[in-house]
Amino acid sequence: MDPMNKPLLRVLRGEPVWPPPIWLMRQAGRYLPEYRAIRAQAADFIALCTNPALACEVTLQPIRRFRFDAAILFSDILILPWALGQGLAYKEGEGPVLPPLRDAAGIAALDPARVAAAVAPVMQTVRLVRAGLEAEGFAATTLIGFAGAPFTVACYMVEGHGSRDFAAVRGLAYGDPALFARLIDTLTAATVEYLAMQADAGAEVLMLFDTWAGILPPSQFREYVIEPAARIVRALRVRCPDVPIIAFPRLAGLMLGEFVRATGVDAVGVDASTDMAVAAEIVGPSVVLQGNLDPLALVAGGQALENGVRAILPVMRGRPFVFNLGHGIVPQTPIEHVTRLTELVRAG
Amino acid sequence: MDPMNKPLLRVLRGEPVWPPPIWLMRQAGRYLPEYRAIRAQAADFIALCTNPALACEVTLQPIRRFRFDAAILFSDILILPWALGQGLAYKEGEGPVLPPLRDAAGIAALDPARVAAAVAPVMQTVRLVRAGLEAEGFAATTLIGFAGAPFTVACYMVEGHGSRDFAAVRGLAYGDPALFARLIDTLTAATVEYLAMQADAGAEVLMLFDTWAGILPPSQFREYVIEPAARIVRALRVRCPDVPIIAFPRLAGLMLGEFVRATGVDAVGVDASTDMAVAAEIVGPSVVLQGNLDPLALVAGGQALENGVRAILPVMRGRPFVFNLGHGIVPQTPIEHVTRLTELVRAG
Repeated sequence: MDPMNKPLLRVLRGEPVWPPPIWLMRQAGRYLPEYRAIRAQAADFIALCTNPALACEVTLQPIRRFRFDAAILFSDILILPWALGQGLAYKEGEGPVLPPLRDAAGIAALDPARVAAAVAPVMQTVRLVRAGLEAEGFAATTLIGFAGAPFTVACYMVEGHGSRDFAAVRGLAYGDPALFARLIDTLTAATVEYLAMQADAGAEVLMLFDTWAGILPPSQFREYVIEPAARIVRALRVRCPDVPIIAFPRLAGLMLGEFVRATGVDAVGVDASTDMAVAAEIVGPSVVLQGNLDPLALVAGGQALENGVRAILPVMRGRPFVFNLGHGIVPQTPIEHVTRLTELVRAG
Repeated sequence: MDPMNKPLLRVLRGEPVWPPPIWLMRQAGRYLPEYRAIRAQAADFIALCTNPALACEVTLQPIRRFRFDAAILFSDILILPWALGQGLAYKEGEGPVLPPLRDAAGIAALDPARVAAAVAPVMQTVRLVRAGLEAEGFAATTLIGFAGAPFTVACYMVEGHGSRDFAAVRGLAYGDPALFARLIDTLTAATVEYLAMQADAGAEVLMLFDTWAGILPPSQFREYVIEPAARIVRALRVRCPDVPIIAFPRLAGLMLGEFVRATGVDAVGVDASTDMAVAAEIVGPSVVLQGNLDPLALVAGGQALENGVRAILPVMRGRPFVFNLGHGIVPQTPIEHVTRLTELVRAG
């Protein structure tokens, strides 16, 4: 297949391909036994992300099972803070934790000059995945590279871990806006480099995940979500003008329209709280939508899954659209429900 | 003062009172040293909620300090599950936890006949607070009674505690919708009784808190948030037609307009993620808005607080409006910032 004819790339150029291409956020993950087997071989999560052979293998696993229209680079949004020199530690039974970054000295110590060398293994993974897709005959599957968006990455860097209200990072943004802006600026510049490197290595689409965008009041949403995304998009248009960009400003809600207009992204991921018909009206005809099945409807399967798919497909028919979940697939998802989902979507 | 002339009641009848009345969600709480002193006298949190003398005292504390335009009954949304017979336990350092309710037998065992007797101390608190406000000269302060909305209360009942994704309760809603509907129906009926009792005891306004409304996809938002709220409002219009109703469907976002139109509430609380000008446009001129300063802007104080207030007051001028936070005040809030907030709002 001519790479330009891959279904996901056609959709991202604005063609209403039907049935729509499908992939799932976090599709290479713990719901797959073959993933858990590989994960057990790596000392920790970052070791897996920076081992190109293993990271390539887990990236390809869901494609072999479900022939998804996209493979997404197996990596983590914490790779960038790690590459900038913020340490990472592991607590038993938890994910990685970062030593919280809360003062000017800590932020000044972040070193963009370290990034290129640190993320070299990730670029090797990108090359291996492109070669692997071709070697294994997945000629229609598009490789997506990604990064965390500056605000969401800053959340983890300042808190040191996940949080329910992100009081520390939001306290820093209110209490010392100049310092917080410096952190966001550092991350914005590093994210451009990191994504452009992925495109150079062979990523055919780039995606920006802003998981925690929705917790911000409108003024901060503009400053820390929209502005950095707009700068990243502008810079990438110069560095890799042919690579489409998908953004996922989770729970943007009433800010979704302003987000897509101000950033100029090609496509936007929609979380499960937003009706796709409403999203279509908000973003207009020129922005591609991606989403938005509730991951818990996929866990439930049966009627919940059928209803969930039926709430999306008919309203997206005729538009350029990428089927996905509204958030990452969860570990307790039965594999046969994923199979059923792909059947439902491919039946259009 | 003629009770009908209290500023909050005038606003809730549609008058654009200026400067607007102000109160804060969770205003009787841990940021106040006098609250912490009383809290230390009670064995546990439910003991405090069901001790009318102590609950009245903490309800009045923030009125004495800040002369807020509303006192809100000191209670907890878990009072209703407790009154229905679901047990409550306390873990050191955590709030109350419930034995998770996940099957038909557990839901069938909930006993609405227990509620009236169990919540009798809460009604005594309502009477004491009304008398206390009058005795202490707070003739302009309105007493608000409240309950958790069925979906949010069900979240805690099924999970047993707070959660980030509420996978258990949402799994139940997808996996056994009939059973989950029975739980929601039980809670809806009990909430009507509980709120009507509060109105009979002297609550002048009733408020329904749906803290977790925003996590639901639109179809479930309609079924578990809008429908129960609409039924509660209809029933209360019969039971206590003169008592205005405020709802707080937190993070409703794009569903806010449908919520207010379908439920017929008098006023709606707006969380900090929504621009008040946008909220005003969405709800139209006949629904009163309440909100929406970010509680973390109040923690930060200074310029963050001034900016936050300035993003709200000028756009609400001329409408019936109640100043509040976008979520509950947090324990680390400096008291002098609350004082400054009341000065800013009262300067209009």
